[in-house]
Amino acid sequence: MRTDLCDRLGIDYPIVGFSPSEHVVAALSRAGGLGVLGCVRYNDADELDAVLTWLDEQTGGRPYGVDVVMPSHVPTEGAQADLDQLIPPGHRDFVERTLLRLGVPPLGVDESRRAGVLGWLHSVARSHVEVALNHPVRLIANALGSPPPDVIDQAHDHGLVVAALAGRADHARSHVAKGVDVVVAQGYEAGGHTGEIGSMVLIPEIVDAVGGEVPVLAAGGIGSGRQIAAALALGARGVWMGSVWLGTREYQSPPALREALLKAGSADTVRSRIYSGKPARLLRNRWTDAWAETEAPQPLPMPLQNLLVSDAHARLMESGDPTVVPMPVGQIVGRMNEVRPVADVLADLVAEGDETLTRMGKLS
Amino acid sequence: MRTDLCDRLGIDYPIVGFSPSEHVVAALSRAGGLGVLGCVRYNDADELDAVLTWLDEQTGGRPYGVDVVMPSHVPTEGAQADLDQLIPPGHRDFVERTLLRLGVPPLGVDESRRAGVLGWLHSVARSHVEVALNHPVRLIANALGSPPPDVIDQAHDHGLVVAALAGRADHARSHVAKGVDVVVAQGYEAGGHTGEIGSMVLIPEIVDAVGGEVPVLAAGGIGSGRQIAAALALGARGVWMGSVWLGTREYQSPPALREALLKAGSADTVRSRIYSGKPARLLRNRWTDAWAETEAPQPLPMPLQNLLVSDAHARLMESGDPTVVPMPVGQIVGRMNEVRPVADVLADLVAEGDETLTRMGKLS
Repeated sequence: MRTDLCDRLGIDYPIVGFSPSEHVVAALSRAGGLGVLGCVRYNDADELDAVLTWLDEQTGGRPYGVDVVMPSHVPTEGAQADLDQLIPPGHRDFVERTLLRLGVPPLGVDESRRAGVLGWLHSVARSHVEVALNHPVRLIANALGSPPPDVIDQAHDHGLVVAALAGRADHARSHVAKGVDVVVAQGYEAGGHTGEIGSMVLIPEIVDAVGGEVPVLAAGGIGSGRQIAAALALGARGVWMGSVWLGTREYQSPPALREALLKAGSADTVRSRIYSGKPARLLRNRWTDAWAETEAPQPLPMPLQNLLVSDAHARLMESGDPTVVPMPVGQIVGRMNEVRPVADVLADLVAEGDETLTRMGKLS
Repeated sequence: MRTDLCDRLGIDYPIVGFSPSEHVVAALSRAGGLGVLGCVRYNDADELDAVLTWLDEQTGGRPYGVDVVMPSHVPTEGAQADLDQLIPPGHRDFVERTLLRLGVPPLGVDESRRAGVLGWLHSVARSHVEVALNHPVRLIANALGSPPPDVIDQAHDHGLVVAALAGRADHARSHVAKGVDVVVAQGYEAGGHTGEIGSMVLIPEIVDAVGGEVPVLAAGGIGSGRQIAAALALGARGVWMGSVWLGTREYQSPPALREALLKAGSADTVRSRIYSGKPARLLRNRWTDAWAETEAPQPLPMPLQNLLVSDAHARLMESGDPTVVPMPVGQIVGRMNEVRPVADVLADLVAEGDETLTRMGKLS
């Protein structure tokens, strides 16, 4: 199951795995895939620097990547205190009332309150790029549109491959026109920020839109070797997988989250703006249901919505209640039925993928 | 590109094509696929009988199928006059106001008003089954849940293959438990009535749920040979395609509809209850946008919603305005860029499918 992308990235299998966990990323790269670290949660650039230093050691020279979040339109900027003032009191009241109604306890006095995810801010994302360029990173991906031109230039000067996510063919064409090397075609099924076009339609559409020179990674609904083979049939040169790693041992998820992930079926997700202000697929539960009720307010734009709910996210996660955990995840969550090491998951993907390709060859 | 389903259905290619047009159905079956006639629009059983007699002649002994719409829960029944009384006046006002605002003229005095689609009614769907059993039909499909037990028994007594659409794995399992022979796994991308799980996730989930003995047809987002190969990679034994035939010469679409279909991209559809009362994917246009505005009423349950809008549908279609045509279609509409004969479309599907399978075999 090799494609030309394997040579370009220096990996054994055309499987790129996104995770906010450096442990997952290290295990993926060691096992022959490409681990890509989600940087959005690092409000402090020094913290990211320390984690990348750890990754440099753990991957032993095998390639890995980073994923930053730079919105194509520069959003509201400012210090957290200034941004906080833009949040309407009615929204804060709704969050408090809802947490009370759901039986979610406040954080303990000794628990530090979360700062909110500032990685959505352009300035913070830029600091992530600067840190990453001082490490032997192989690929830099942007989750929201094309990176700014000077970031693409800098990355190319450092020999990095630049990837960008796209949920529509016109976005993919625009990425390529701006110098992006690899397009991640992410379908409706995907966890986190996602569009409305299903992977079956989107992947070949983007493959055709960008032409044969630009490799496309298929994302959204990929969690088995059959799905990898299907993505290759659709013209992708590899896959970009995120949700599946949440169910691995290395992800070290809290027990409530693990229980929720193992229980959920493919119908137990919802696409909503309540996590970040932009549509993102989340685990459906009592928290997302509360926001879907008629009396709930409309979510705020990015980055305000995440600042509004960041303390609530900490409380929901700390509560230990699997029916309220706030978690971006794709429809593939229905396949997560046991906790396994990353290397075992990857080996199964490759084995089933190869088996499927052989079966396909016999049908022709 | 043969699977065991070809032998079971007596066809050359594992391509089942649904269409409300008998001309498309005949052309599909003659070209080596299985044409399946959508019966929901026949309010009069004799009319369906005449069309099936025509199909018997046109297909020259090659197999074809019929698709009826029997909701699993028997809905409101009654004569049209009784049902009409259940429609709130506010809904009628909204429809009239909206047509006026969109500049849609009334029907001419000599144009017969549409009776509305009564095929959603259990009694009418039953009359379709009775008619079909008097013709050499090879397959009977039900678009909404499992057919009633006695219909399955009757169909089996006549040697028919019974198929049922499913948008969730539990529905598929229930179909099989009730005696359904073939499950059509229909993903979110599909036109018409459709669920929320994307094809990439749904197809293998249903394949695994029903086990190897029950063939699964993949539906939703299938419009090219690469997509057929992807469906086979996911474990389907064939595909069920509907939208693609709307763009064929045999469909004989009115000019406004043809223009709208050729112009639309994959993002130009919307999943809404405004067509029938159940969620269905439609071409997005000024008519569907009007129903999405905050002041629009909630759609009525099946079968009332279609009775409410049936005259409006006739007016919208007769208006000749491509920006208002009411039409169920899948996200694959983005691929429809020219009007071609059914046989040419089928030949391309087979050629690209075979090419893809050969390419897949070389990757293993």
